[in-house]
Amino acid sequence: MVLIDLINANGTHFSPNSWRVRMALAHKGLAFEVRDIGFMDVPSLHPQGEKVTIPTLVHGERWVTDSFAIVRYLDEAFPNTPRLTGTGSETALLQFFQNWVQTTVHAGLARLIMQDLHRSLLPTDQAYFRESRERIYKMTIEEIQAGREERVAAFHKSLQPMRQSLQAQPFLGGAQPSYADYLAFGGFQWARISSTFAVLNADDVVHTWFERCLDLYGGLGRQDAAAVATR
Amino acid sequence: MVLIDLINANGTHFSPNSWRVRMALAHKGLAFEVRDIGFMDVPSLHPQGEKVTIPTLVHGERWVTDSFAIVRYLDEAFPNTPRLTGTGSETALLQFFQNWVQTTVHAGLARLIMQDLHRSLLPTDQAYFRESRERIYKMTIEEIQAGREERVAAFHKSLQPMRQSLQAQPFLGGAQPSYADYLAFGGFQWARISSTFAVLNADDVVHTWFERCLDLYGGLGRQDAAAVATR
Repeated sequence: MVLIDLINANGTHFSPNSWRVRMALAHKGLAFEVRDIGFMDVPSLHPQGEKVTIPTLVHGERWVTDSFAIVRYLDEAFPNTPRLTGTGSETALLQFFQNWVQTTVHAGLARLIMQDLHRSLLPTDQAYFRESRERIYKMTIEEIQAGREERVAAFHKSLQPMRQSLQAQPFLGGAQPSYADYLAFGGFQWARISSTFAVLNADDVVHTWFERCLDLYGGLGRQDAAAVATR
Repeated sequence: MVLIDLINANGTHFSPNSWRVRMALAHKGLAFEVRDIGFMDVPSLHPQGEKVTIPTLVHGERWVTDSFAIVRYLDEAFPNTPRLTGTGSETALLQFFQNWVQTTVHAGLARLIMQDLHRSLLPTDQAYFRESRERIYKMTIEEIQAGREERVAAFHKSLQPMRQSLQAQPFLGGAQPSYADYLAFGGFQWARISSTFAVLNADDVVHTWFERCLDLYGGLGRQDAAAVATR
């Protein structure tokens, strides 16, 4: 299996949605290779010109795109590995959790790291990224990130339901990590790789949980280095 | 089985956490009676003086308090009825969802209906309710609700992850309601019974979903009348 994934200028993998899949593959003990690309490569990826997004998993002749579709595919294609998407009602609740991650974790983090993220990308990807994000946010990359020191406390507060769960148990899945953990992990990993800004306080159980997730599967999450401060 | 539940001055059941249990009992097809009480009755409820909260379910000699504990008890005591708390990772995710309901739905609604809720209570409950809530919020009942017309849009926005799920499927559980639906339903039912303020826009899928939940189990949710505007 080949996971097609984006790299930044440091050659590290920053896509939050790809990290969901990478952790899911490790959870299932499935071996995979990674094909590194930039945003500019995405439109010409598929041999028959089908539209794909990142992450995409290629399994033999089969191309599967979108992180949730990939994890559901893995549950079906490898029925003897630990299931991640569960029963009907659990799948539906995971989709709610993914919505929460997108609207709270990803959207909150984006406004804390956008300029750093832009600066970390491959030079050939920066113009596309700036133009597309500035169109979505209706402000400049610099304006999106501005004032983050004042805004980070509101981000911390928005994590309260996740914090309450992690005060009672080590993982969102309970005693062991579940796909909910990987959904949330992807966002914080994106920030770790793209920015040196401390998005969590060191004494927050969410921070402790994130470090715990980085340790999973032989430290898989640490194989891609954190952003380093530049002068 | 007897569900011990709070009533307001109209004799209607307003407790959001009791509605979770009422819907869970109906989902399982279990018959139950209701014992109506006021807040002032709670401290003296238990025959041996144990501390209980509302809802409490009495099943023979067994007293079970706290909505989540009750639903887990029902899953265990009636193994041939449809399970609501699922497997380990699903239970953990339901607890996250309950945290989200508490911090987003309940806390958001409280600031929209607090004064109406206070006014709707049994006269003997109002002093206790005012004192306890004003201590928590560090403001008066009237101040908690003030400015709701300006704040309701932010409440609607906070429901976005739930709205995204309901744009894709009729219930949070998917094609059929799950305990996640009853967790969220409780909050909106609390508002419906306690206040005439429109907490949702009529064209919101969350509103459509709430009406759909009110129709479940022979219109169980409509057996307790909505608040009526007074002159």
